[in-house]
Amino acid sequence: MKYAIAIEYDGRAFAGWQIQPDQPTVQIALEGALSRMAGHAVRLHAAGRTDAGVHATRQIAHFETDASRPLTAWVRGVNSFLPPAVAVLWAREVPDSFHARFSAMARHYRYLLLNHPVRPALMAGRVGWTHQALDLEAMREAAQRLLGTHDFSSFRAAECQARTPVKTLHKLDLHADGRMVVLDFSANAFLHHMVRNIMGALLHVAKGNRPPQWMDELLAARDRSIAPPTFMPDGLYLAGVSYPAEFGLPGEPDPRHGMI
Amino acid sequence: MKYAIAIEYDGRAFAGWQIQPDQPTVQIALEGALSRMAGHAVRLHAAGRTDAGVHATRQIAHFETDASRPLTAWVRGVNSFLPPAVAVLWAREVPDSFHARFSAMARHYRYLLLNHPVRPALMAGRVGWTHQALDLEAMREAAQRLLGTHDFSSFRAAECQARTPVKTLHKLDLHADGRMVVLDFSANAFLHHMVRNIMGALLHVAKGNRPPQWMDELLAARDRSIAPPTFMPDGLYLAGVSYPAEFGLPGEPDPRHGMI
Repeated sequence: MKYAIAIEYDGRAFAGWQIQPDQPTVQIALEGALSRMAGHAVRLHAAGRTDAGVHATRQIAHFETDASRPLTAWVRGVNSFLPPAVAVLWAREVPDSFHARFSAMARHYRYLLLNHPVRPALMAGRVGWTHQALDLEAMREAAQRLLGTHDFSSFRAAECQARTPVKTLHKLDLHADGRMVVLDFSANAFLHHMVRNIMGALLHVAKGNRPPQWMDELLAARDRSIAPPTFMPDGLYLAGVSYPAEFGLPGEPDPRHGMI
Repeated sequence: MKYAIAIEYDGRAFAGWQIQPDQPTVQIALEGALSRMAGHAVRLHAAGRTDAGVHATRQIAHFETDASRPLTAWVRGVNSFLPPAVAVLWAREVPDSFHARFSAMARHYRYLLLNHPVRPALMAGRVGWTHQALDLEAMREAAQRLLGTHDFSSFRAAECQARTPVKTLHKLDLHADGRMVVLDFSANAFLHHMVRNIMGALLHVAKGNRPPQWMDELLAARDRSIAPPTFMPDGLYLAGVSYPAEFGLPGEPDPRHGMI
């Protein structure tokens, strides 16, 4: 049987998603708990392999098992074997044709940016932070210029293993809620560090260093070296993954712009 | 000179507010950082001595110093000496007559309660949690019965050092935001564990174990032993402190019901 699960985690507790030697990762924690519940070794495949310090409100992954357990065993049972910073939100049986990574039509990321003179304490590690005044209108206009299908090489990390730098950005919405700026990204897929690199460029515009039209130049240059530095991972959340309707999996992120 | 400061902290990082031997406390961290900035030993007096695991979005404290520094030194300067889980939000000069504890007219606490089948991962330690179905209307009615001036002995911890168990509860509002239940408490002062003990009783009603009118019995009994257990500290925040207008200090909590 094949199961899809949704997972929430606090990225501060892990060295990213993917298995690494001698480091706690989300994949290692989950495979351990699922294997214990299944009674055999379980391998987990995720929609997005998040970096160290990046959080998830709704990561999607799948696994196969011969063990016959009620669905609640794969949620509350597995959660009882997991550390506090990670939890399975739901589990669904899926057909053999489903693959968490290859079936995904869109990934949704949210960035929480605190714009305040004082650094965060309660939300330390959970929000990006800048104390500088931001021109949110310019930032929004810059964001709009990235929509559509482009070669995103200027926003691609050197280590990126994607076959192509051409991705389709469906959405890049900006919403201010008091001193918190919430940015919602949706794309068919993201390059390595793409959201954090876009954040670096948007902040460059928001601080008045460049006009919004500069984003066109960055895209056209297809050159990472001319774009601003990668912004901090702290405020980045994998917020959902969309699949073809036939799988019946909820994919859209929670529409509320809260602190999650 | 006397200064008032507002402080935000994540209670998980500390063994409560008050100085204790061989334990990291908020007071120790702040006095260390303020003393370093002042160049002499600084003693800090807080409006509310929060327990281990209890957070603050706006704790108020005062200190005296001979050192002449710009206000920003007591905020951003001091923050640079503090661990990530605590930050000074603002500093104001106050007259000698001000005392963070004795001048306070009202304290405001907020409790964040996650009502969801799955335990929190991203908000672990930052929200209380129950997976049981809650009757929020009954919970709200029970809360209303506690308003006013009462002997709150049934909600008072054995260790409580307050001179009197009679307190005036000005506000106990309940607001549901999706799966999060937000409770806002305001009183002239709170007994030790009073909010957590009230939460225990309100949840007993919300789960259908007792009717809302039972709160009247609990109050009248003035007996801690007949009331339900103390609820977990995880979702509790000191959200503000009100002072007489003459001091010109912002005291009301942030009205937004976000995750702070």
